[in-house]
Amino acid sequence: MASPPSKFKVTVPATSANIGPGFDVLGIAFSLYLTLDCERLPTGATPNFQMTYEGEGAKDVPLIAEKNLITKTALYVLSTYGIQSLPPLKIHVSNPIPLGRGLGSSGSAVVAGVLLANAAGQLNMTQDRMLDYCLMVERHPDNVAPALLGGFVASFLRELESEEMEPASIPRSEPTRNGAALPPTPVTDIGHYIQLGWAQEIKAVAVIPDFEVATEDARAVLPDVYERADVIYNLQRVAVLTTALSRSPVNTDLVFRAMSDKVHQPYRKHLIPGMAEMLEQITPKTYPGVVGICLSGAGPTILVLATQNFDKIAEAVQEIFERQPNGGIKSMYKVLDVVTQGAKTEYSD
Amino acid sequence: MASPPSKFKVTVPATSANIGPGFDVLGIAFSLYLTLDCERLPTGATPNFQMTYEGEGAKDVPLIAEKNLITKTALYVLSTYGIQSLPPLKIHVSNPIPLGRGLGSSGSAVVAGVLLANAAGQLNMTQDRMLDYCLMVERHPDNVAPALLGGFVASFLRELESEEMEPASIPRSEPTRNGAALPPTPVTDIGHYIQLGWAQEIKAVAVIPDFEVATEDARAVLPDVYERADVIYNLQRVAVLTTALSRSPVNTDLVFRAMSDKVHQPYRKHLIPGMAEMLEQITPKTYPGVVGICLSGAGPTILVLATQNFDKIAEAVQEIFERQPNGGIKSMYKVLDVVTQGAKTEYSD
Repeated sequence: MASPPSKFKVTVPATSANIGPGFDVLGIAFSLYLTLDCERLPTGATPNFQMTYEGEGAKDVPLIAEKNLITKTALYVLSTYGIQSLPPLKIHVSNPIPLGRGLGSSGSAVVAGVLLANAAGQLNMTQDRMLDYCLMVERHPDNVAPALLGGFVASFLRELESEEMEPASIPRSEPTRNGAALPPTPVTDIGHYIQLGWAQEIKAVAVIPDFEVATEDARAVLPDVYERADVIYNLQRVAVLTTALSRSPVNTDLVFRAMSDKVHQPYRKHLIPGMAEMLEQITPKTYPGVVGICLSGAGPTILVLATQNFDKIAEAVQEIFERQPNGGIKSMYKVLDVVTQGAKTEYSD
Repeated sequence: MASPPSKFKVTVPATSANIGPGFDVLGIAFSLYLTLDCERLPTGATPNFQMTYEGEGAKDVPLIAEKNLITKTALYVLSTYGIQSLPPLKIHVSNPIPLGRGLGSSGSAVVAGVLLANAAGQLNMTQDRMLDYCLMVERHPDNVAPALLGGFVASFLRELESEEMEPASIPRSEPTRNGAALPPTPVTDIGHYIQLGWAQEIKAVAVIPDFEVATEDARAVLPDVYERADVIYNLQRVAVLTTALSRSPVNTDLVFRAMSDKVHQPYRKHLIPGMAEMLEQITPKTYPGVVGICLSGAGPTILVLATQNFDKIAEAVQEIFERQPNGGIKSMYKVLDVVTQGAKTEYSD
């Protein structure tokens, strides 16, 4: 085997899932990147693992290989190839993706972990195989698929026999009957997806309030069953939206109507103070340039799709956050491009 | 006003709704046409209305202007313009669309009626305005939208105040308070739609069994509520399918998986003997060329999307119908193109 390049860089975009009516379906990759700058250390180096971190989560994210989500994912992937540890490695993580805000930070971390394993272990995985691994760790495809593949992505998992996907979390290396310690290798073709078109004049304005919503809490408020009319409501709008967002010039009226959702946003309004007002007040009529507004992922970030007046629109959303009870909610915003390039590994040296 | 042409021909394609996971959402227009050959009669002609009919339903379809669905629809449209009767007219209807089989025969008749009114009354309606009228009569857009517009169409109705859409059937001319007899004119912009792309190599094989399923019976078997997992299942597949069917060459594996439905087909299996077997047995592996299979509309027609081996595929479906209990079910089939041209009126003379 040729000597591997000593330095490589893994870059993974942030994502937004649950676009409009596309709950658990539609995700977008943005021009906001988690990066890992990696450098192989000589065999026998002490310490043989060094991890540094800057950016969002710097105070809280663990930097121990077995605990950090990026390296934990990489270790799982490597272990299915019979490799029980990372090669001696120095990793610097730079993360501008706020945690727990609905911008897919953990999905991007999982994708980064899979690419890290692929590069560090010289595994030569295909993109589809990397997706299988991502999906073994994060079971919803709507963040990891766009993070890995780039662009505006619709995806689903094939119906798996439950034993194919067990254990439900990252497998720990339990000894098997014959004494080996290999965790289950994913079955193939777990995820199915298509990269949809995207009208390049549409940018995403992400207004990120200063509080977190745990995905599990946001999921707990959803009903177990839905009225047929609400099901059809979302099916119709998803069918229109996926193509409408690809057409240029944008049919603003059609896209705005098709961004409407009855499957998750109505149930999550009370988790995100001000959201109900935003959905009513931030429209193409009140703020020219707006083409759609929705919760990003499970929130609390508000995503406005727009073609102009990005700052003005962001400020209008911020103002609604600010006038919420009990002193208001602070927020920041980012005007992001939708990027067709997904996660990548660049080798230098 | 210029003297109108004395002859005109209205042509409306047949359609299939509920494509795959797109229940109440996705419709396709086919190369199978309801036609009206119309000729104006001189003022004062006796009789001043003559209607002849050939083809499917010839034995049962009423040919009285107030009872036939085509002319009843035309009369409603005209009445909203203050025109209380059709001009003196001879109409020959040619209808190759089987009735009550899930090929949108009534939707095509409604569209034909609106175009008939538009031509006979010289109303100069826009296509969008004609859609409003179609939707006042047939409240589901998934057949009338492709019949009117052509192609593969995703559509939804805007949320209407109930009074905007009342009465729920074609209005009868009840005297209003001030003594006038005008039925309600539709509000504008009822229907919203997009014409999706379609890979031209995909044709539709419609296998039409020899029995009818009433849409209301097929609707009665549907549940009032759906489990969240089933909702997401269909949302994901609709999002993938709408774009996947537009891409050439066809990603057969992806399209076939995305054609799967949990919202209406599982509940309608017992209404269409053999359907469950067909969905399992007619696959891209067993019959190369198959890219998808679903119920057409509310059934009983089975629609197979395919790129080759059309006759062989149709015969395989027919064979499953034939081996059903109690002597089997007879069927016929048609290999149809998806047509991008929707309903049209041609003037001659």
